Amino acid sequence: MTASLDHLRGRFLVFDGPDGSGKSTQFRRLVEAVEAQGITVCEVREPGGTHIGEQIRDLVLHYKDNIDGEMDKRCEMLLFMASRAQLISQRIQPALDAGQLVLADRFISSTLAYQGTAGGLPVADILRVGQVALGKTWPDLVVVFDVDEQTAASRLSPLLDRMEARGAAYHRLVRQGYHDQAQQDPNRYRMIDATHDPDTVYQAVIQTLTQWSPK
Amino acid sequence: MTASLDHLRGRFLVFDGPDGSGKSTQFRRLVEAVEAQGITVCEVREPGGTHIGEQIRDLVLHYKDNIDGEMDKRCEMLLFMASRAQLISQRIQPALDAGQLVLADRFISSTLAYQGTAGGLPVADILRVGQVALGKTWPDLVVVFDVDEQTAASRLSPLLDRMEARGAAYHRLVRQGYHDQAQQDPNRYRMIDATHDPDTVYQAVIQTLTQWSPK
Repeated sequence: MTASLDHLRGRFLVFDGPDGSGKSTQFRRLVEAVEAQGITVCEVREPGGTHIGEQIRDLVLHYKDNIDGEMDKRCEMLLFMASRAQLISQRIQPALDAGQLVLADRFISSTLAYQGTAGGLPVADILRVGQVALGKTWPDLVVVFDVDEQTAASRLSPLLDRMEARGAAYHRLVRQGYHDQAQQDPNRYRMIDATHDPDTVYQAVIQTLTQWSPK
Repeated sequence: MTASLDHLRGRFLVFDGPDGSGKSTQFRRLVEAVEAQGITVCEVREPGGTHIGEQIRDLVLHYKDNIDGEMDKRCEMLLFMASRAQLISQRIQPALDAGQLVLADRFISSTLAYQGTAGGLPVADILRVGQVALGKTWPDLVVVFDVDEQTAASRLSPLLDRMEARGAAYHRLVRQGYHDQAQQDPNRYRMIDATHDPDTVYQAVIQTLTQWSPK
């Protein structure tokens, strides 16, 4: 029997972390648990989540097929932010207004870690654009699934995608990015040790959420 | 015989103004004049100008066919900024580095006037995102073709597009937006009275450009 999660109604939670951290598995388990308690959940996954967001995601993912050479880093970041602004306007804010729990798989915390700390775009620039793109709709809580790169790699398919092919140094920077964010905004972030088995990690998620009280 | 425009080499000029201001006609005349003087011109037109920019423009223009309802204003602005970042990285900055004159038909000044002053998005928010999207590549000079809405409307095709269908009040705000920008950044902006015939306006353009000295 899971403890009451009723205080999550009308709140905006993000699950984030490196590929291979197991966050999507935990995401599904939490959705089941809160729905079993009668809480309506609005699930969003980045990038995408709206019609325009899917088109933007396709633009970014299929860019290597284009004739223009590399996509500018700022262009890519602004595209993700555009998609996010639409997602907020169309799905997240209306759900919060209706008292639903919004649960997002990745959000601006991913941009900060991947395009910022690991990708070389200044974190301050991403936050500056984020202030405009997100407006007042910032997550109430960001749960980061923290995992070393060896554990993460062992969980990933050998069919590596573009991100995953970037190597251990890149992954260490992504992880560092999440640590930096949690350190700079401790009220909004919670780190969970995601190296353990799924049941143990899930218990840590529930403990974290029951102990968290919204401001 | 046009006076020497040699001081425009390696500079970034923007022609901007409301639809119907005649700026595109003046743009073509200036390109011919500077090329006749042996100056290489990099012409860019917004929105678009790169492969990714064309795709972004299609996304925005065809959005009314989508199923999601209205496009969020911030999403639209961020899409334009993403396109602009790519245009700078791929075409504008390399041309400037090669000592070419970059001549842009519309740039961030259009976003400030249309999405900002007329569209209701805070101008400060657009500038904040612009600082990141443009980086160090701001126009050296923005020439605004200033025209009242009656004159502009008389020049436009009766086949009004979405923008043009918004009415006189909207057009007055767009014009106000350009005036506000020129007032707030007088070193970078020059206003040209575009109500006259094309030859008279062109003489004013040449006079403005010969009198302008880059810092």
